[in-house]
Amino acid sequence: MLIQTLIERKRDAGALEPAEWRDLLARYLRGEVPDYQMSALLMAIVWRGLGEDELTALTEAMLESGSRLEWAGFATPCVDKHSTGGVGDKVSLVLAPLVASCGVAVPMMSGRGLGHTGGTTDKLESIPGFRTDLTLDQVQAQVRRIGVAMFGQSDAIAPADGRLYALRDVTGTVPSIPLIAASIMSKKRAEGLDGLVLDVKAGSGAFLPDPASAQSLAEIMVRLGEAGGCRTTALITAMDRPLGRAIGNALELEEALQALTGEGPADLRELTSRLAVEMLLVGRVSASPADAAREVEKAITSGRALDKFRHLVEAQGGNPAIVDDPGGLPQATEVELFEATEDGTITAVDPKPLGQAVIEMGGGRRQLRDAIDHSVGFVVTARPGMSVAAGQPVASVFARDADGIEVGMQALRSAIRYGPADPPLPLILRRVTAAGQEQP
Amino acid sequence: MLIQTLIERKRDAGALEPAEWRDLLARYLRGEVPDYQMSALLMAIVWRGLGEDELTALTEAMLESGSRLEWAGFATPCVDKHSTGGVGDKVSLVLAPLVASCGVAVPMMSGRGLGHTGGTTDKLESIPGFRTDLTLDQVQAQVRRIGVAMFGQSDAIAPADGRLYALRDVTGTVPSIPLIAASIMSKKRAEGLDGLVLDVKAGSGAFLPDPASAQSLAEIMVRLGEAGGCRTTALITAMDRPLGRAIGNALELEEALQALTGEGPADLRELTSRLAVEMLLVGRVSASPADAAREVEKAITSGRALDKFRHLVEAQGGNPAIVDDPGGLPQATEVELFEATEDGTITAVDPKPLGQAVIEMGGGRRQLRDAIDHSVGFVVTARPGMSVAAGQPVASVFARDADGIEVGMQALRSAIRYGPADPPLPLILRRVTAAGQEQP
Repeated sequence: MLIQTLIERKRDAGALEPAEWRDLLARYLRGEVPDYQMSALLMAIVWRGLGEDELTALTEAMLESGSRLEWAGFATPCVDKHSTGGVGDKVSLVLAPLVASCGVAVPMMSGRGLGHTGGTTDKLESIPGFRTDLTLDQVQAQVRRIGVAMFGQSDAIAPADGRLYALRDVTGTVPSIPLIAASIMSKKRAEGLDGLVLDVKAGSGAFLPDPASAQSLAEIMVRLGEAGGCRTTALITAMDRPLGRAIGNALELEEALQALTGEGPADLRELTSRLAVEMLLVGRVSASPADAAREVEKAITSGRALDKFRHLVEAQGGNPAIVDDPGGLPQATEVELFEATEDGTITAVDPKPLGQAVIEMGGGRRQLRDAIDHSVGFVVTARPGMSVAAGQPVASVFARDADGIEVGMQALRSAIRYGPADPPLPLILRRVTAAGQEQP
Repeated sequence: MLIQTLIERKRDAGALEPAEWRDLLARYLRGEVPDYQMSALLMAIVWRGLGEDELTALTEAMLESGSRLEWAGFATPCVDKHSTGGVGDKVSLVLAPLVASCGVAVPMMSGRGLGHTGGTTDKLESIPGFRTDLTLDQVQAQVRRIGVAMFGQSDAIAPADGRLYALRDVTGTVPSIPLIAASIMSKKRAEGLDGLVLDVKAGSGAFLPDPASAQSLAEIMVRLGEAGGCRTTALITAMDRPLGRAIGNALELEEALQALTGEGPADLRELTSRLAVEMLLVGRVSASPADAAREVEKAITSGRALDKFRHLVEAQGGNPAIVDDPGGLPQATEVELFEATEDGTITAVDPKPLGQAVIEMGGGRRQLRDAIDHSVGFVVTARPGMSVAAGQPVASVFARDADGIEVGMQALRSAIRYGPADPPLPLILRRVTAAGQEQP
């Protein structure tokens, strides 16, 4: 089959057969299909979308391009969480040890920072010595031993996705709901999970700001998960403002430690608990949401969750002393308070300029191999709906020099808006399961 | 400007600025923009189209990527004709010498066979010795000397179009009206013409079968021509059946010689005359369509048109004896009659299977460098509307062996249909000028 024939069929709103998707991906990985044909096909997919069978076939072809985690003889249910990414989203750092301390194993594969959003592996690497580049064998051994591992995406998992993603990134073919779904679900299914919980962000700081698009992505991913034998639930959650107060790698890690002891911002604690409950439910270790919520609450108050995080840090070569003394995390040399510029009500704290500023201040990557400064970022106490007086401190900027401070101050001026505006999104907009979607 | 930003803008239905089109093409030709970004952009153009300013800018950027013919000090008006391609379309072979014998200079640049349609340069090369690979200097000198040259497209003219066309061909991005228009008009404008007549085909054997699409292409090309200071008229003409009776290189050349003496099929003579009239009008050598028609008629009956063809053949190295004795053209070794398979009325003679069969019989190219057999093809007397009896001969197959005969017979069985059907298209559907479009 000529590749241009497949491109033409997709261009004309037709569908490729499952065998054609498998053959196409295999030939692409062998270098027999050039990037210029694949990028034209990707743009045709952005245009025409993918049918249900096509999406399943593409996801499985990507999954089968690499290895899978193996859990033979391991009785504990394995559950992961995936977030589509946001600003200040440090939920994974809290959630993985929390859920692992409740009898669910968590092999959690995470990405680097992408665009204006941070990445969990970058945040973990602000702990001195912490390694995220585990082999699949190391992941399996560690999860069997302590119930949790947090590791970076490796070329061993769904290499076709890695190749395609790099091409999509430079050809304007990223924003396609089926391509996003196939990319996420091929990797998640390679983890050999019993259950998966998806945190699909909506709002100005999300990759798909429109709640309807987020809903559509959630429904597709739930279907792809369930079709692969993995119980899958999605929450659609707010990313029209940062999550919690801290933005930036070490600052977010410190806030995650607070949440593991039941402290820290209410929205972070609420979202983490809700996702933890969903993970216990898809892992089938709790009989009801109420039971799961009690179990989660107990894991925090008993200190089990924090202990699990300590074991995780030790297991992956990090210095566990930072768990009790976050002063051991990288500290910014320059700190400056940001004050409200008006009397009145804060109507918006736009996440995007803050996420972009962290990159510009040295806390994120422009290129894949850039080294990053874990210490820089923001602590933002300003929230939509908050009444403030001009001159009242509402944020702090953490930077490595005066230029960084200026970048941060400018970003805060642009992000924080005053006066009448739309009410913020509820923290959790929707819950999507195989049975349908509901108000949470 | 990042290329992916331009791709994203087009993907989201935005427009690129003229300076961005110029910069993009220049960087592509220098190898600084990879094919995989260009092909994604091309697919986005197939999807979103091009605005009027974008189309002008792209056409001019392609034009300016190469050389132009120069006519300084040459008083005769220069006019060319371009056809979007069809089966049995040997009009150029008649038209160029005919019009050149009426006081209009014709620097006619033609392509090779493309897909199921034949190419004028291939047909000319069935004349022993005839060369179409003229340099631009040779074209200019010959047109100044005898008023006509028929030459193949060279890399000197609009090289950006050549690069883009090769990429479009393998990435499913050929069928875009603005891309087709830019490709044609960048090359035609490089000829430095005073006037241009376009023969835009519609019907099942055309690249754009739908008459509305043909109309849209015609309007865009007329606008691009006029914007470049070239008086431009288009006819939209029927390609739901072959033009004339002969299909195949030497067979078509022989039929063209008949038309140059006022013989041969009526549809070929009518279309050639109509196009010749339009060329005299845009060349402003005739005051009215009636005057132009009289001039064209006189050129045929006086033998001036045939003489001009003889001079053209001599000038380009061909053997002029074939003009008076077509027996000197390549002759097929195998010839077989094809008989009607039913009593009744022929409702369709589908051009596409016949054009494809010529390629399969060795008379066209699968790859650009393939050698071709000029002798093979068809003479089809079957026409839509013709009453026939089963067993009545309605076509002949010309092939180099028994396999070729079988390919040809099979194509005729598939092409010729009987019984009630839609009436055929009128030969000339529309006339499109800068002033608008009209029934012819």
